[in-house]
Amino acid sequence: MPEPAETVSPLLKSCPPSLPATAYIDPQWYARECDRIWRREWIYAGRMNDLPANTLRRVETAAGACLVARGAEDRVSAFLNVCPHRGAELCGAADRDFNGALITCPYHAWAYDLDGRLRSTAFATPTPDFDRAAHGLTGVAHRVWNGCLFLCLSDDPPDFSPDLGLAALDNWPMDRLVTGHAMEVELACNWKVFWENYNECLHCPGIHPALSRRVPVYRQGVMSAAETSAPGAAGPALEPGTQSWTVDGRPCGPEFPDLSAAERAAGHTFVTIYPGVFLVAHVDYLRIVSLTPLAPERTRLRAEWLFAPETLAAPGFDLGNVVDFAATVLAEDGAACEMNQRGLRTPGFRAGRLMPQEFEIRAFHDWVLARLDD
Amino acid sequence: MPEPAETVSPLLKSCPPSLPATAYIDPQWYARECDRIWRREWIYAGRMNDLPANTLRRVETAAGACLVARGAEDRVSAFLNVCPHRGAELCGAADRDFNGALITCPYHAWAYDLDGRLRSTAFATPTPDFDRAAHGLTGVAHRVWNGCLFLCLSDDPPDFSPDLGLAALDNWPMDRLVTGHAMEVELACNWKVFWENYNECLHCPGIHPALSRRVPVYRQGVMSAAETSAPGAAGPALEPGTQSWTVDGRPCGPEFPDLSAAERAAGHTFVTIYPGVFLVAHVDYLRIVSLTPLAPERTRLRAEWLFAPETLAAPGFDLGNVVDFAATVLAEDGAACEMNQRGLRTPGFRAGRLMPQEFEIRAFHDWVLARLDD
Amino acid sequence: MPEPAETVSPLLKSCPPSLPATAYIDPQWYARECDRIWRREWIYAGRMNDLPANTLRRVETAAGACLVARGAEDRVSAFLNVCPHRGAELCGAADRDFNGALITCPYHAWAYDLDGRLRSTAFATPTPDFDRAAHGLTGVAHRVWNGCLFLCLSDDPPDFSPDLGLAALDNWPMDRLVTGHAMEVELACNWKVFWENYNECLHCPGIHPALSRRVPVYRQGVMSAAETSAPGAAGPALEPGTQSWTVDGRPCGPEFPDLSAAERAAGHTFVTIYPGVFLVAHVDYLRIVSLTPLAPERTRLRAEWLFAPETLAAPGFDLGNVVDFAATVLAEDGAACEMNQRGLRTPGFRAGRLMPQEFEIRAFHDWVLARLDD
Repeated sequence: MPEPAETVSPLLKSCPPSLPATAYIDPQWYARECDRIWRREWIYAGRMNDLPANTLRRVETAAGACLVARGAEDRVSAFLNVCPHRGAELCGAADRDFNGALITCPYHAWAYDLDGRLRSTAFATPTPDFDRAAHGLTGVAHRVWNGCLFLCLSDDPPDFSPDLGLAALDNWPMDRLVTGHAMEVELACNWKVFWENYNECLHCPGIHPALSRRVPVYRQGVMSAAETSAPGAAGPALEPGTQSWTVDGRPCGPEFPDLSAAERAAGHTFVTIYPGVFLVAHVDYLRIVSLTPLAPERTRLRAEWLFAPETLAAPGFDLGNVVDFAATVLAEDGAACEMNQRGLRTPGFRAGRLMPQEFEIRAFHDWVLARLDD
Repeated sequence: MPEPAETVSPLLKSCPPSLPATAYIDPQWYARECDRIWRREWIYAGRMNDLPANTLRRVETAAGACLVARGAEDRVSAFLNVCPHRGAELCGAADRDFNGALITCPYHAWAYDLDGRLRSTAFATPTPDFDRAAHGLTGVAHRVWNGCLFLCLSDDPPDFSPDLGLAALDNWPMDRLVTGHAMEVELACNWKVFWENYNECLHCPGIHPALSRRVPVYRQGVMSAAETSAPGAAGPALEPGTQSWTVDGRPCGPEFPDLSAAERAAGHTFVTIYPGVFLVAHVDYLRIVSLTPLAPERTRLRAEWLFAPETLAAPGFDLGNVVDFAATVLAEDGAACEMNQRGLRTPGFRAGRLMPQEFEIRAFHDWVLARLDD
Repeated sequence: MPEPAETVSPLLKSCPPSLPATAYIDPQWYARECDRIWRREWIYAGRMNDLPANTLRRVETAAGACLVARGAEDRVSAFLNVCPHRGAELCGAADRDFNGALITCPYHAWAYDLDGRLRSTAFATPTPDFDRAAHGLTGVAHRVWNGCLFLCLSDDPPDFSPDLGLAALDNWPMDRLVTGHAMEVELACNWKVFWENYNECLHCPGIHPALSRRVPVYRQGVMSAAETSAPGAAGPALEPGTQSWTVDGRPCGPEFPDLSAAERAAGHTFVTIYPGVFLVAHVDYLRIVSLTPLAPERTRLRAEWLFAPETLAAPGFDLGNVVDFAATVLAEDGAACEMNQRGLRTPGFRAGRLMPQEFEIRAFHDWVLARLDD
């Protein structure tokens, strides 16, 4: 008879080795991850609210660059960002406007419809045996969930839901939120180093002084009260007198109306979608942090702050008060990740050792290894 | 009985695949090209008019750096740019003056004559068994054609002429032209991408608006009237009222006196010498565009504008009017090449497909592949 | 019966080949050197006078980054610069103060004593089977000789002395000298190119005009009078009227009192400690030049000028007069090394040829090859 769930400690029962150091450095290991993970999983590709109708956009992923085409209204297509004629890039760094119906290659003006079918070869006159149907754009699977676009480069994508855990955000009005701020930074670390940092709070007391004041349980180096029997661990989720992750602790606007009492009390609700994104929902705003591996030791990080339109429009709205809090946490984590990566490069260092509290890292490693072994 | 030549269409009879994407990216493919093509073929190395007497110059090629030594008058020698003593570079980025007779290594002052023979070991005193004859400079084949210097790093260079096609410029006074302007740019593309762009005009209407006005047939996406039966294709080669590739269409100086009527009517005469250079002769000036592969995805481009000395010296000569026209075309082609290269990197993209009008690309591919298979 | 030592010429009896060009370029050759040479030999790691008590410092070597911890007084420890927990770097580019007793990892606050023993896992609570003794810092061998710190990353370090030749400096008050100036530069050359340059003076007349005036025998391209029978070779070691390697030739302060007459007359005493450092002692000051390979074709050079404290403190002390002389020589050598490296890259160049006067290069090559073959 199993123990009741609430009494099962998530803590590891031993201190297993971490991944080998080569997993964070070796180009071949990295190439395998791009192929077995980044090509096969759903990757967050931005907010529909930030992609105007009749727009072409390049979205970079560790498994290749995609072209996202938003036609009229909510019609969205996604393809490999390459023209079958001679391999030109269909869209570069800058978004391109288009007529919402035909995607034209900027090199030789071949045109494709939103299903990827080749509709025109412009000045080129193929011979009669040329098979137009075989020379359309290569489609990329895509799903829109409550205003968030996800791509999957696999020919056989996994189910989009419900395993991704997005249901945890059902009480937030995801669809109507707009992006009030975004920032990007490149970190000199492997992408897994970022997730390891994300998956434990042993570093919180030393690395995140302000965050550890805001979330009292972090001062004990744990991620939730469930991990500890220390006195006070069952206390308030947020520092008394504060309701959100803002500099002054006050909500940046009206609280979302449909949150449950538990969601309100928690002060933050995390949704993690490997390999590329996590979302954090607060009572007043929501944050999306996504990552794109660029090389074995280089990762791009993007953070977006989402708000109800009326919050952004309210007189006296203080963007800095809400952005600076998490931006500081991200900068602290980024510096820690780069410090970790430099150490991992040390010749002779083989592998670290996980502590019982690092159970989420262990789960992440299992997630990665299961896919690499596949 | 074969058809008369003038009725044979150059158009391809099918739409064959282009080279595999790896041909533009893979370091091993590139290394093989350096060895089988760039080391074995004649490479344009600049104009004698730009190499003063008694000058040493480093000339970079994809097969290694060469030392060109111009002694008195027209005496020219070429060698690998390395001293046999301990491997020092004989000439760096800056030209060196010398006495026209002895090439001295800047490191230990060993001296070589213009035949590459070791003439002095300076302060070093070799033992009697040291074979000076075996420690001369390694010669590099060279030819001067009408003021243009060509090098070949092969031990067994192919014949210099007449296959290179230079005879097409016999009516231009090549020898006495001087360089009025030169520019260099590095493109983020494989060298073959540049030649593919050069070898078709399907991209002209979209990429080169001004050029397509100047050369009416380009508006139809073809390179010459021979490729098309469209009405007007046999019309004037250049836009009515213009005689040259200048911004205002007027010649930048007196027309060259010995051109044939056909050459005058054509408005431009192209000579292509794979793998490294093409020349374009107009009624009033001549342009040389050469390329040097630096890496699989990096190519240096150099353009030189040649004029009769009296054209350059004429009052009111407008250099901008002549340079800007082709510089714009080159910039447009450079951007297109980089766009093509970015697309070729797309994981999963295997190869493009050539159109019937891309017969010159097919011929270029054949030229490349024949040498790689060799 | 052997010849009397003084009559044995050091000159080579033939002109053997130099190392193959690949030895200066190939990443695999370089990796083997890092492992067989830089990991196994004693590496100079700086002056104790420049490492305050209670300081942690990262020291980079070609075999990995080390952490040097100076506790109270002269207590020094050295370890691999990586935390066994999850591989964080213990000390970054900036020195860290510490309490002289516990080295704390900046990521998760694990703490180690100066013997490397794990003393605290901070917020982490390992399971009882976790073996703390197996998770201490990895020690790195270290020795302090007269104020100079040396490290060896081998598990089985060679004897520190007396083979290193440091006894030649016994008459200098090494221990009390302080660093009056230091400079670092990165050279685009293999580390062995630097030592080859150091090991011959055939280049001196051409590359070092001022130095060749100061040291007359250098004008003949030799390193010492013993190598030549030329008239005047037994003359004064330094230019008449000068006593040191300073711009004006005058000592920069009081002469060291315990030097022998021969040391005083020589004007410079060299000690070479492969693979990473040489020291040059003059009558009035001392210079240490150390190198750190960063990549096959990239080497960091560091030069330090050491003085008696009273010399530095004397009114009118002219730092520029003493620094500029050798800094000029180093800049000249650096440019020569980079010129050499560029030539070594020439495709088709296989190996240079050593001259009889390059006997020290031959000895250096033997030293290198013996270790690579090991």
